[in-house]
Amino acid sequence: MSRRIQQLRELISTKNLDSVIISGPSNRRFFSGFTGSAGYLLVTLSKSLLLTDFRYVNQAKKQSPEFEVRQLVGNNWIPNIAEEYDLCEIGFEDQEMTVSTYNTIQKTICDYPKNVSIALHEISKSVDQLRSVKDPDEMELLKRAIAITDQAYEEIKPRIKPGMTEKGIAWDLEMIMRNLGAEAMAFDIIVGSGPNSALPHHRADDTIVQDGHPLVIDMGARYEGYCADLTRTLMVGEPDDRFQTIYEIVLRAQTEAKKQARPGMIGSDLDKIAREIISEAGYGDFFGHSLGHGVGLNVHESPNIGPNSKDILKEGMVFTIEPGIYLPVWGGIRIEDIVVMENGSTSVISQASKLD
Amino acid sequence: MSRRIQQLRELISTKNLDSVIISGPSNRRFFSGFTGSAGYLLVTLSKSLLLTDFRYVNQAKKQSPEFEVRQLVGNNWIPNIAEEYDLCEIGFEDQEMTVSTYNTIQKTICDYPKNVSIALHEISKSVDQLRSVKDPDEMELLKRAIAITDQAYEEIKPRIKPGMTEKGIAWDLEMIMRNLGAEAMAFDIIVGSGPNSALPHHRADDTIVQDGHPLVIDMGARYEGYCADLTRTLMVGEPDDRFQTIYEIVLRAQTEAKKQARPGMIGSDLDKIAREIISEAGYGDFFGHSLGHGVGLNVHESPNIGPNSKDILKEGMVFTIEPGIYLPVWGGIRIEDIVVMENGSTSVISQASKLD
Repeated sequence: MSRRIQQLRELISTKNLDSVIISGPSNRRFFSGFTGSAGYLLVTLSKSLLLTDFRYVNQAKKQSPEFEVRQLVGNNWIPNIAEEYDLCEIGFEDQEMTVSTYNTIQKTICDYPKNVSIALHEISKSVDQLRSVKDPDEMELLKRAIAITDQAYEEIKPRIKPGMTEKGIAWDLEMIMRNLGAEAMAFDIIVGSGPNSALPHHRADDTIVQDGHPLVIDMGARYEGYCADLTRTLMVGEPDDRFQTIYEIVLRAQTEAKKQARPGMIGSDLDKIAREIISEAGYGDFFGHSLGHGVGLNVHESPNIGPNSKDILKEGMVFTIEPGIYLPVWGGIRIEDIVVMENGSTSVISQASKLD
Repeated sequence: MSRRIQQLRELISTKNLDSVIISGPSNRRFFSGFTGSAGYLLVTLSKSLLLTDFRYVNQAKKQSPEFEVRQLVGNNWIPNIAEEYDLCEIGFEDQEMTVSTYNTIQKTICDYPKNVSIALHEISKSVDQLRSVKDPDEMELLKRAIAITDQAYEEIKPRIKPGMTEKGIAWDLEMIMRNLGAEAMAFDIIVGSGPNSALPHHRADDTIVQDGHPLVIDMGARYEGYCADLTRTLMVGEPDDRFQTIYEIVLRAQTEAKKQARPGMIGSDLDKIAREIISEAGYGDFFGHSLGHGVGLNVHESPNIGPNSKDILKEGMVFTIEPGIYLPVWGGIRIEDIVVMENGSTSVISQASKLD
């Protein structure tokens, strides 16, 4: 944690601030280790405070020994602390804080009986960038989440038979992952059979898996807060020519993107590599989402790898590569792996098997 | 859904608006039935639009037949639609929208090539109030979620033995609820044994349940989006005098609050009824949270029933009553039921057994 707080302090200096308020659950956990559902970090160049309510004070003291824990009472804590430590230029997470909270804070500053001069500055993007490069502790947790996910997929794969429901498969997968040590699912498991596989974010329902239908499974374990994200597409029964053809295009798009990704590349350029392969094969209109996204404490985080992304890929970033082709009525095929940028190119972390 | 959209239109009229944007996941689902993770509703006095991205367009068409579904492309959709339908006064959810999204919208309005005059107005509180009174369809789903939760508690209760871990009990409960039809947990199950039971929001861990320790279980099934919320406290082994005494105080505080709650009462007054009983018994410093909260599509929603709440209790509101006493080291006792305000007083929906 010390190193992370140090990085935050460097950000404070670079941005000419004197402090930052961290309010988003993932960033709160990242910088302090605190997992409660409510609270704020206030970090200055020399102090680290954690403010939370009655329910979490003792938990916070246990989980965040590097922070001074205070119980939040009343609304005036920002001007109070600003006065106590003489803070004027405070960074805040504009992508986490609601308009309502922001307005309440501004009002407490205005109404404060003593004269305090506080300006709030947006820092979400800078903090997200900081989190997009993973440290060794994070890599270990991510790899564990991914290994659990891979293993669960290998266990379910030979058990999938016509007559099972999408929901049943999703629940079996969840039980396997939980028994393997997952603390929760990183997101609701997607199991899409036949026409449902053409809906990229279909919710597993009572649809019965049938012979000759594509089956998309998108799943991820959460382990100590870190999220895995894996998609595999199967053909239930014997794959026909159409399935084989489209599968091969999607796989080629994924393989090329993995191979050509380099540090310094812009997200949209990597997206383009996969998108052009799919377009040249005649399916450009049927790949409507981004090629990938960063993954860590959130299942979707920085960097974005989509047609409009300006994010720059860096050493140590962990992200998905997940091209797909979705044909209404027939179904869809998506293949998703998690990779890490290391030593100048990508290493694939996901090890779940694909079609031969 | 028609009746709900009608209520939203009445709100538009009352507030002198011409439209509202709904961006929060629960409100989006409440007014449209759409369960995707991204999208906006834009409702005017005569039009109902649902805007979402590529991943969800087909799902939205299926789930929200009363809405015209459009695919979101680019950032300019608000000024575009404002121009199309001549909208100037637009309500938005200030408790859901982030500062970043709000600023982006304001910028697209400013930069729009044509002259549009749009003012954004905060409406979160009004929409929350509207949702705090439940309609018959909601009551049915809530009762189902609560019944699953009650039944799971009755199944686990006789199986709890010294030597089990908190985590093990939580996972057993989750499996029972899922097998009974819960789509998910409404929140991470709290199982707190011994000193952990004194942390109101303790996360179930590897702590081993021991004879002579209090055990707090706080759990809730989610069914078709609706959340249950139930807390029971047991003594593992034979309850001793201290446990009996404190349990009786907490139960009396809960019973009196249930009995005296009336439509028209202010949240803080109901909180006070329970708090005074606990204070008079000498434990006022050990009940640090609110007495209760509304429950529905969110596990915490309007009304708030705490010491500072100005929310007015109304017929048809559904909320928890959950006093607690938490003694560091020894442990805590909390008892929580869900009630509905009907025919001028509360009816208790939760049926899970308590100590005799």
